[in-house]
Formats: sequence, C-alpha cells, structure tokens
Amino acid sequence: MSFTRQLVARGHVVGGGREPLVCVPLVGRGADEILEAARLATESGADLVEWRADYFDDVADRAAVIAMARGIRETIAGIPLIFTLRSEGEGGQPVSLTATDFAGHCAAVCEAAIADFVDVEMSTARENLETVKAAALANGVGLILSHHDFGKTPDAATLFELFSRAERLGGDVAKVAVMPNSPDDVLTLLTATRHAWRELHIPLIGISMGDYGVVTRVTGWLFGSSVTFAAGEGSSAPGQMPVGDLNRVLDVLRRSVGGG
Amino acid sequence: MSFTRQLVARGHVVGGGREPLVCVPLVGRGADEILEAARLATESGADLVEWRADYFDDVADRAAVIAMARGIRETIAGIPLIFTLRSEGEGGQPVSLTATDFAGHCAAVCEAAIADFVDVEMSTARENLETVKAAALANGVGLILSHHDFGKTPDAATLFELFSRAERLGGDVAKVAVMPNSPDDVLTLLTATRHAWRELHIPLIGISMGDYGVVTRVTGWLFGSSVTFAAGEGSSAPGQMPVGDLNRVLDVLRRSVGGG
Repeated sequence: MSFTRQLVARGHVVGGGREPLVCVPLVGRGADEILEAARLATESGADLVEWRADYFDDVADRAAVIAMARGIRETIAGIPLIFTLRSEGEGGQPVSLTATDFAGHCAAVCEAAIADFVDVEMSTARENLETVKAAALANGVGLILSHHDFGKTPDAATLFELFSRAERLGGDVAKVAVMPNSPDDVLTLLTATRHAWRELHIPLIGISMGDYGVVTRVTGWLFGSSVTFAAGEGSSAPGQMPVGDLNRVLDVLRRSVGGG
Repeated sequence: MSFTRQLVARGHVVGGGREPLVCVPLVGRGADEILEAARLATESGADLVEWRADYFDDVADRAAVIAMARGIRETIAGIPLIFTLRSEGEGGQPVSLTATDFAGHCAAVCEAAIADFVDVEMSTARENLETVKAAALANGVGLILSHHDFGKTPDAATLFELFSRAERLGGDVAKVAVMPNSPDDVLTLLTATRHAWRELHIPLIGISMGDYGVVTRVTGWLFGSSVTFAAGEGSSAPGQMPVGDLNRVLDVLRRSVGGG
C-alpha cells in the first residue's frame, strides 16, 4: 500500500520510495560536533538529513555557513540534505540575522548546489520568500514551505489552509508542525493531514509535537505525512524520539501494515 | 499521564494500571492446543487472556466447556480471564448452538466463578443478555458488552452510540471493533473512541481492524482504549500483530509518551 507522496531530490526518489522517510536533524553548534552528528545520522540509515543552521556558532558568516554545508554534504555522501534556518518565532535559536540575511543565506546555499531542499517559513515576507524560491528553482533545489506553532493546534480548517497555502505559494513540499494540548488536537492534525493528502498534489509533512504528539512521529505516514523527524545526537523539537527507537517501531508497523 | 480507564477484576486493578492492557486470545480447537497457547500467553506477559470458546471442538458440551475453562484458569494462574462465545455474525466460528445456549454457557461459566469477565454482544436478544448480566453480577464477573462489524466502519455518531449503549445496558466495559476501508475510517474510530472516553464513565475498547487499522492496535490507548488484542499462537481477528511485536512497539511508545 502507498500512503504518502514521494519526495524527489535532483531527479531521484528519496529513500527509494520508503514510507515514511526518516529525517535526522543536525543541531550541533561547532563544526566538529556537527560533522560527528552527520556521521552518526548516516550510520543510522537516515533517508534525509536536515542541517538546522540556526544552531551553528558561525551562522552570521555566510562563507562559514557554505563551508559547513559542504562539510556536511561530504560526510553524508548521497543522503539528501535539507538546509534550514529556523526563525526564533517558529522554534529556532536566537541569531543576530535579519529576515533578509536569512533569505540571502538560503539563496547562497541553493546557488552553491549543496543542499537538495531548503526550508522556508510561510510567514517569511513575500519578497524574501521569492528570493529563495527563485534561487531554489534555478538550482534544482526543492522548496519546503513550513509553518510551526509551539503553543497550540489550530482547528482542522486552519491546518488544511496552511497545507494549501504551501502549495499555492509554489512549495515542492508542505510542512505543518503544531503543538497539541490534548489527544483531540492530535486527531485534528492527523485528520487535516489526511484531508490535505486527498485534496492537494505535493508531498506533505504533518507533525503533532510533544508527548501527546508522539503517535504522529510513528503513524503520521499512514495519514499522508511523507517524513518523520527523529533525534540523532540531539533533537530539534519536543516529541522527537531517538532514531533507533523510531526505526524499531517502524520495522514492526511496516511489516504489519503490509501483511495480512 | 493517564489516557484510559482502568479495568477492575475481582477488586484488583488489571495489569496494575498499565496502559494499554495487552490481551491474548486463545483460538485452539483441542484441549492440548488451548492449554499450550495459554501457557505461551502467560509467558508473553499478557495482562489478560481471552478464551474464544467458539473455536473449541467441544463447545456444544457445557460440562466440557466448564472443565476447559478451569484448565485455562489453572494454567494462566492470576491473569484475568475473559470468556467469549463470539457469534458467527460478528466474526465467530460456526457452532451448533442457539442464542439461548450461548447465554446458558456464559451464565454457567459465571456461576462456576472461573472467568473474570464475560463478553456478550449487544445484538444479543434482550432476554439472553439479561440472563448473562444477572449471573455476572451475582458472581462478581465483569460484563463486556461488544459490537463487531467486519465489513465497514459506521460514522462517528453511530460508533459513539454503540459505546453509549454498552454503558446504558449496564456493561462494565464497552467494546467496539470495526473494519476500516480507508485511513479516514481509522481516524473516525479513534475520534469516536476519544469522544466516548470524554462522555462516558466505563472503560472502553475501540478497535479498527485489518491492515489500515493496525495503528489502533498500538496507539488506541492514547485515545481512550484500555485494551489491545495481540496474536499469541493464533489471531482471532485481522490486524492483530504477534504479541512480541506489539510489546516491542509499546515499550518505545510508553517511554516516549512518559518522557520529555
């Protein structure tokens, strides 16, 4: 059975079409720490690696960011890389960069042809979003348009509208990650993800964070979410389980769902 | 965190309040096969054992049924036992017994004080249901009122009404197991289970069967379902995973949900 849409990076189907794709974020501050985490993510069998550059000590130095991205690329070899500069308002680290600097960094990483995907928040000013989108398109980099809410889960209609907006704005992938305050909020996120899967045409990533949302880390793919994030050396959001634990659960679920 | 209501058997909280409770059904035909499965279920760490007496070769002989139940009780020692005679219409084996025979068997097992719970389908004629209910009450046996649909998943309102009916009819536990024909049906069952958990007062068992429903076997407890059924030597319904696989997944989920 197929429950999700495939991600394509530079003409290749990511993870050979495995469901779900497991993405390990790199959240180190120094180069050595980041490269070691990249090595361990590769060993874990990750389908995708996300570099959360907002954690990087030298994030303000564009040349250093490009050099670091190249180091990660060499370490993870053929694994598709997502470049992400998360803003503080959506759960990122505090950094001394303007929104325009953010867009400039993202565009530079696209032009250097290092990353396979770049993540841009939909709340980004339209001008900055267009800057990154143009650079991504010109360099064959996939555009992930994202929305994060660490405080609450909006209602199902609002969640569906967020997925839809990502598609309307030209995203190659729509990502919505929100915080549940009850098990009901978790069902709302899963229901909205499934609704978006039926109505839209791009791959989706729907995540309910925190303790209540753990269930979406392991079963979101059954409702249309193509990617699940797992903690490698560090986690980038509440509710991410260690990649070894996630793989153990997914092994059983993939067998059970495929079987009789 | 607590997601489900506790089951109580003869004054004791089943499984020490563990979430979810794992129940292994016995589906052997002959006595040796049944007792061997009971031994393995005990070794697996099951919190509950269900004897599906409709699979038993001698099910038409009431004395043989009582003797077999006693043998199971000795084998599983302190593990609470559910006695179930499933009708063919709700997924049971074809047996040459009338509905009145069914109720008489159930009442006799209650009077012999062997089982901790007896499962009765809500579709049972009112007179037969009252016969079993009276015997259960008089002997301290918990009454599980159940509904099974192997063809489809009714809408959320109908599912909620089924849980409610079990409570209105005097059940100690309400069980609803239905077949999904899409991931949407799985979300409908989980949403109805959670709704019933908020509105009702008795413990609930909500199951979505088959491949699509596998997710409810491992995560239904997060939405209010107290018990999950896993295959021991044999499975009694589509979608039940081997008890070892289920335990592996639950180990991770319990740790993750309880953790940060």
